Amino acid sequence: MKERKITVYDLIIIGSGPAGLSAAVYGKRAGLDLLVIEENPMSGGQVLNTYEVDNYLGMPGINGFDLGMKFKEHADAAGAEFKTSTVSAVRDGGAVKIVETADGKRYEAKTLIIAAGAQHSTLGVPGEEEYKGKGVSYCATCDGAFFKGKDVAVVGGGDVAAEDAVYLARICRKVYLIHRRDSLRAAGSLQEKLKSCGNVEILWNRTVQSIYGTEQVEGVKLVRAAGQKKGAELLAADEDTTFAAADTSRPGSGEPTQDLKVDGVFIAVGMKPDTEAFREAVACDGQGYVIAGEDCVTGTDGIFAAGDIRTKQVRQIVTAVADGACAVAAAERYLAGLK
Amino acid sequence: MKERKITVYDLIIIGSGPAGLSAAVYGKRAGLDLLVIEENPMSGGQVLNTYEVDNYLGMPGINGFDLGMKFKEHADAAGAEFKTSTVSAVRDGGAVKIVETADGKRYEAKTLIIAAGAQHSTLGVPGEEEYKGKGVSYCATCDGAFFKGKDVAVVGGGDVAAEDAVYLARICRKVYLIHRRDSLRAAGSLQEKLKSCGNVEILWNRTVQSIYGTEQVEGVKLVRAAGQKKGAELLAADEDTTFAAADTSRPGSGEPTQDLKVDGVFIAVGMKPDTEAFREAVACDGQGYVIAGEDCVTGTDGIFAAGDIRTKQVRQIVTAVADGACAVAAAERYLAGLK
Repeated sequence: MKERKITVYDLIIIGSGPAGLSAAVYGKRAGLDLLVIEENPMSGGQVLNTYEVDNYLGMPGINGFDLGMKFKEHADAAGAEFKTSTVSAVRDGGAVKIVETADGKRYEAKTLIIAAGAQHSTLGVPGEEEYKGKGVSYCATCDGAFFKGKDVAVVGGGDVAAEDAVYLARICRKVYLIHRRDSLRAAGSLQEKLKSCGNVEILWNRTVQSIYGTEQVEGVKLVRAAGQKKGAELLAADEDTTFAAADTSRPGSGEPTQDLKVDGVFIAVGMKPDTEAFREAVACDGQGYVIAGEDCVTGTDGIFAAGDIRTKQVRQIVTAVADGACAVAAAERYLAGLK
Repeated sequence: MKERKITVYDLIIIGSGPAGLSAAVYGKRAGLDLLVIEENPMSGGQVLNTYEVDNYLGMPGINGFDLGMKFKEHADAAGAEFKTSTVSAVRDGGAVKIVETADGKRYEAKTLIIAAGAQHSTLGVPGEEEYKGKGVSYCATCDGAFFKGKDVAVVGGGDVAAEDAVYLARICRKVYLIHRRDSLRAAGSLQEKLKSCGNVEILWNRTVQSIYGTEQVEGVKLVRAAGQKKGAELLAADEDTTFAAADTSRPGSGEPTQDLKVDGVFIAVGMKPDTEAFREAVACDGQGYVIAGEDCVTGTDGIFAAGDIRTKQVRQIVTAVADGACAVAAAERYLAGLK
């Protein structure tokens, strides 16, 4: 029989976005023997792909990549150990938690902090990836202020889309809310509020066909949503006085398209947390988020969830960083025998 | 009859520590017409008096004053308006919230964020104020890491004091827990954990008479706690082998004192939130904290609480900054007609 000797860490942190890196700093400063397992060799998470971050207090207008690097440098300075690997499974072995990775390795710790993040759902249309951070945004709270006095579109029909439209209406000249159906799922009071905004126009039964521009976004092409009224009827039925004429000349397209000139496109069609590998070890909600409150305590003793991956209302860099602190505090309490 | 015309702000923020300044940045970026009322003309709150902050992610080892200045500059860059005044009362007028100040002024807003902070209770002994940030600390999580391999004292007997001692035991060479009674109020499991730390020594029935040093803290003078065993008996009864001999030579003192050589003193004798002026408008808990969860929503519609002043477990700079974001998100939801 072959025996394997394995280090049992005080704490393993899964993920190296703002929540994971903050947990690493707090954990190392608390004298915990810890390991950070990160999927990408480049730490920082979503922040890295953000053009400009202007709401992390104390660092106005910083480039997202630079901010991610500063976060990583801080964790390095605190002495955190990193491994690059994809976590394939997490198992709760009571006093010892087991983390398995796609490269066949196994790690053990007394406590775990799951900080693997969440991703914004995309439209998957031409131009979306290309203009990310150049007019395409997935977060009105984060980026709305960059579009002061400009014209923007919000894509979606739920609460977040409606809230984004209300938010942007205070900042932007004109806000188009583009929705693929003829009614919103958003709360009634929010729909009332939308109507009371003088500069919000809802474009029903449309989907975005593409996003175009040169250096920055210059507009979107819209088409009739599948299963809804025919395009021609739709265009005739609506009072699209602010629109350019329908563009039927686009080669290879039998559909009439509408050209909507906007400086920004806010895509609010949901988020997907990366919880596949953790489902066995912790309880998740219907959308896949790990169920945990402000204290980051999950339903499983000794396993904590921090950042975008946990159930919470405000998913911002700073709320993820705060979670890192709270999750380590909870892990310490657990290690000290407190629940 | 004299009519007064008064601006009704979208939002008034009371307090300009990390929570208030973060709320100002998020509020201005959200296009809200807002005012920050601060007690001191120098914004930043407790941070300003912190020698070094090493756990605000992205800014390792920054001087507290510098960090406070960066926070204020960010709020200024976002265009926040500030007034220096002491808030004497807050009243809930339904759709309009009223803030009265000690200089007889009155301000009105649709929403309020109370971010007036809390203060650590002090011992009130000679040397405490003098060595604040030079060995005297009120936060083990914040400052413990600066005492790696050193000897420190923790003063207090509750959960926080015991947790601080456990925390510091992982980092420091030796931890003395100084308590004025002969038993701890801290949870049983925590007391077990304390006993299991090989480098924690509890010094019962003692109070700190003074803190001394030159540039930095070098030690504390301890005396028998009032109402407890006589000093001489105490000293005889304890096995204070690590102590210097009792100092009975101190002029003007009839009490024998013990000299305890330590590099740091962590004072964990409670916190006091500054909620006097808000009691009429919002519900507070037994200790005076404004009752509010992660979303910063209080029991009063349209009034929110952010930072150290609200009921929470982890009072750190970053959790206060996160609250600023969450409180503005909640205020926006309220303004949009959502609860």
